[in-house]
Amino acid sequence: MEDVTVTFTRDDEIEASVLIEGLPGIGHVGKLVAEHLIHELEAEKIGEISSIYFPPQVVVDERGVAHLVNNEIYRCDKNGLAILFLVGDFQSTSAEGHYILTECYLDIAQDLGVRRIYTLGGYGVGHLVENPRVLAAVNMEHLLSEVEGAGGAFEGGGMIVGASGLLLGLGFARGMEGVCLMGETSGYIVDPRSADNLLTVLSCLLGIKVDHTLLQQRAEEMERIIAKIQETEEARGREDLNYIG
Amino acid sequence: MEDVTVTFTRDDEIEASVLIEGLPGIGHVGKLVAEHLIHELEAEKIGEISSIYFPPQVVVDERGVAHLVNNEIYRCDKNGLAILFLVGDFQSTSAEGHYILTECYLDIAQDLGVRRIYTLGGYGVGHLVENPRVLAAVNMEHLLSEVEGAGGAFEGGGMIVGASGLLLGLGFARGMEGVCLMGETSGYIVDPRSADNLLTVLSCLLGIKVDHTLLQQRAEEMERIIAKIQETEEARGREDLNYIG
Amino acid sequence: MEDVTVTFTRDDEIEASVLIEGLPGIGHVGKLVAEHLIHELEAEKIGEISSIYFPPQVVVDERGVAHLVNNEIYRCDKNGLAILFLVGDFQSTSAEGHYILTECYLDIAQDLGVRRIYTLGGYGVGHLVENPRVLAAVNMEHLLSEVEGAGGAFEGGGMIVGASGLLLGLGFARGMEGVCLMGETSGYIVDPRSADNLLTVLSCLLGIKVDHTLLQQRAEEMERIIAKIQETEEARGREDLNYIG
Amino acid sequence: MEDVTVTFTRDDEIEASVLIEGLPGIGHVGKLVAEHLIHELEAEKIGEISSIYFPPQVVVDERGVAHLVNNEIYRCDKNGLAILFLVGDFQSTSAEGHYILTECYLDIAQDLGVRRIYTLGGYGVGHLVENPRVLAAVNMEHLLSEVEGAGGAFEGGGMIVGASGLLLGLGFARGMEGVCLMGETSGYIVDPRSADNLLTVLSCLLGIKVDHTLLQQRAEEMERIIAKIQETEEARGREDLNYIG
Repeated sequence: MEDVTVTFTRDDEIEASVLIEGLPGIGHVGKLVAEHLIHELEAEKIGEISSIYFPPQVVVDERGVAHLVNNEIYRCDKNGLAILFLVGDFQSTSAEGHYILTECYLDIAQDLGVRRIYTLGGYGVGHLVENPRVLAAVNMEHLLSEVEGAGGAFEGGGMIVGASGLLLGLGFARGMEGVCLMGETSGYIVDPRSADNLLTVLSCLLGIKVDHTLLQQRAEEMERIIAKIQETEEARGREDLNYIG
Repeated sequence: MEDVTVTFTRDDEIEASVLIEGLPGIGHVGKLVAEHLIHELEAEKIGEISSIYFPPQVVVDERGVAHLVNNEIYRCDKNGLAILFLVGDFQSTSAEGHYILTECYLDIAQDLGVRRIYTLGGYGVGHLVENPRVLAAVNMEHLLSEVEGAGGAFEGGGMIVGASGLLLGLGFARGMEGVCLMGETSGYIVDPRSADNLLTVLSCLLGIKVDHTLLQQRAEEMERIIAKIQETEEARGREDLNYIG
Repeated sequence: MEDVTVTFTRDDEIEASVLIEGLPGIGHVGKLVAEHLIHELEAEKIGEISSIYFPPQVVVDERGVAHLVNNEIYRCDKNGLAILFLVGDFQSTSAEGHYILTECYLDIAQDLGVRRIYTLGGYGVGHLVENPRVLAAVNMEHLLSEVEGAGGAFEGGGMIVGASGLLLGLGFARGMEGVCLMGETSGYIVDPRSADNLLTVLSCLLGIKVDHTLLQQRAEEMERIIAKIQETEEARGREDLNYIG
Repeated sequence: MEDVTVTFTRDDEIEASVLIEGLPGIGHVGKLVAEHLIHELEAEKIGEISSIYFPPQVVVDERGVAHLVNNEIYRCDKNGLAILFLVGDFQSTSAEGHYILTECYLDIAQDLGVRRIYTLGGYGVGHLVENPRVLAAVNMEHLLSEVEGAGGAFEGGGMIVGASGLLLGLGFARGMEGVCLMGETSGYIVDPRSADNLLTVLSCLLGIKVDHTLLQQRAEEMERIIAKIQETEEARGREDLNYIG
């Protein structure tokens, strides 16, 4: 086994100009957006990545079948825009491995002709946000106005750790444009509302129209659950008062 | 020294179609079953594995002779069924090492003609279990019915960490069938009763008859010890009452 | 990507006889001195170092542009004295990486003709120091008198961890002279006063005159801030007394 | 720099049949014995070992001169018995490094003709021991009686971690005899008394006579200090009683 193994499940001449990374992170914001797009754009799985830098374990599915931990590559080709997706549940277990895995992701992207990378994530703020902004960072100055025009906000400062950050940093050295979009989120819950806002900015940047319905339904569902929890807590508050009174 | 060193103590033409892994784990369930089978099937040691990924130490035996930490390979050939055993007391000290060691175990297995792997372990439930089930996971869908027919239960979900899991995941990539059997166990004691139940499922899958006597004697012994502890605690409970009364 | 990547932004025939290392450390003393010298001597950036041994992240600047973490090499050539500067915000994330990165720093220095290395840092003492000394260590005995003559103090004993220490230790094996200067500092604040004193010793060793104004202004500013904090605390102390009285 | 660098300070035809390892450990027992022997047998330093697996730092001596951390090799040749000594203050910072460093130590030993290795250490028992035994482990069965005859005690069981253990385990694979001697010691203090007893067993095994005076003087000094501390504590005990009474 190589340190990183890439297995393509189709080897015909494919290419794509855009890579969207949606590995797990705060509020699962990036993962929700990437998976929503894969569903809506009917992307198909074209490859798997396993590595000695991933956790040393298998995942058992609901039937009892064990699978080596891996990340996956999907691809869609809609209306002349071919997009690669990098999704999955794993990041490197070591600092060095983050660099090695990201270089591998970039090798795949470069081989398929990718010229721009979007990395998606959440930006934890520690409290519920009613209208979460989409914070952004880019790896080339000329991208700033384009991203701002699409609704991305720039705060400046800070670090972006792991694949989301390194794809921008190491992609720059290969001349690939990189945009990181981070949906504001509390950090406590899976946050489809933040994902919904992020999708608005991303689809504007991609120049495509995407149906938001499924993501919005999940957001409303989540908001009903939160409202119910808050009601229960208030009710309990009143009861406590009754009891005291 | 290579990163992993395999030393065969006999080099004549040997082969085996099945590998049974019984490295240490929860309740020593896998280890107990593998060692019981090695004893009952009169398997002989054919090799040793040492590695820089094992803990950097020697084990001193009861006479005072120190041995480099290693895992061992045994082999039996009974009634036309040749079985390899992978046993020992050590797993990798690093995440990457788990992958590297498991690939080495699979190299050995593949060289000797292994087509199916059984990995044995315990499944900790946090309380004493009267009739422990044998939970299972497989690495190919077609194995599900066979394992269920032999008494294995599928719950689905979860992770299997270390060699037990990776042998299934990395074995799949080589076309080797893999079955992981995990005996339910409290996680507090060495559990020969759970091992006894696991052996029933395993010997059914292997299509062999194995004498359970030694394992059952150990189970009964352990149950007597537990019963005695429980009695003592109850007695102490009564005394406390007398004292209070 | 190599384990360590060095990118020179100019490749004409440059050389330098002295390397000054000012990576971050206690009180930012070394960093302050190196950056002051870069400014005063109008050194220009000639290269960047990135590595899988640095933290796996990008730094986002105030505009929102993300940069791969790296250390930087500057060079000045004033009055016949060419000096290299090694500055930046990162050290290795692993023990082995410290050695590998330092060998790389030394390769760069050796290629450019460096024969002497100054490594700058702070020496934490746990309390405010009014007139901080400049403690020193050298990697060759014949340097002791020269450094003492320039105002460096030798206490002897102790360890110097990371690039500041290894540049001396590994530089020695290459026949390069090494001097480590450590400004006494509380360890609680960024300490331009300690940096100012260190600069006095260093510029004496370099045989150059450097304007201290900017560093002294920062020191006075910092001292005003500290004085104000102390006043406030005393005032609060009197108030407390009034209240009690 | 190689992962491990060995520098010999003399390269004439030297050889030695015995290696004595005295790296630091519990109660500094092994270190005390090795250093005592180096002094009494007038061994001279013949080499240094540095490595990326050692801590990334330099040690500053009392004059202010910094030295790369390293372990050292000494050699004596007295009455026809040539002995190598492996001493120093460092062990590997990683598990894998322990294996790699020990193989390097064995390479050196094998090149110089070493056929037997003594590794020295302390065996912590958690309380002061009046007449500390010398516990032993060997790496070949035929050594048991010889070591027992020299006064070594075998308890059996347990692990020996680090270079002391691996020199036996990895040395065995090269056909080199290995004896580990561990002086019982409290684990709280540097213990020259335990070292003195260990030296008795070791010099018997080596078949040489060594003056114990210096080690015994240090032991008596240490015992006076301990006696004084105990007196002080008893006195304080009486005072407390007076105070209460």
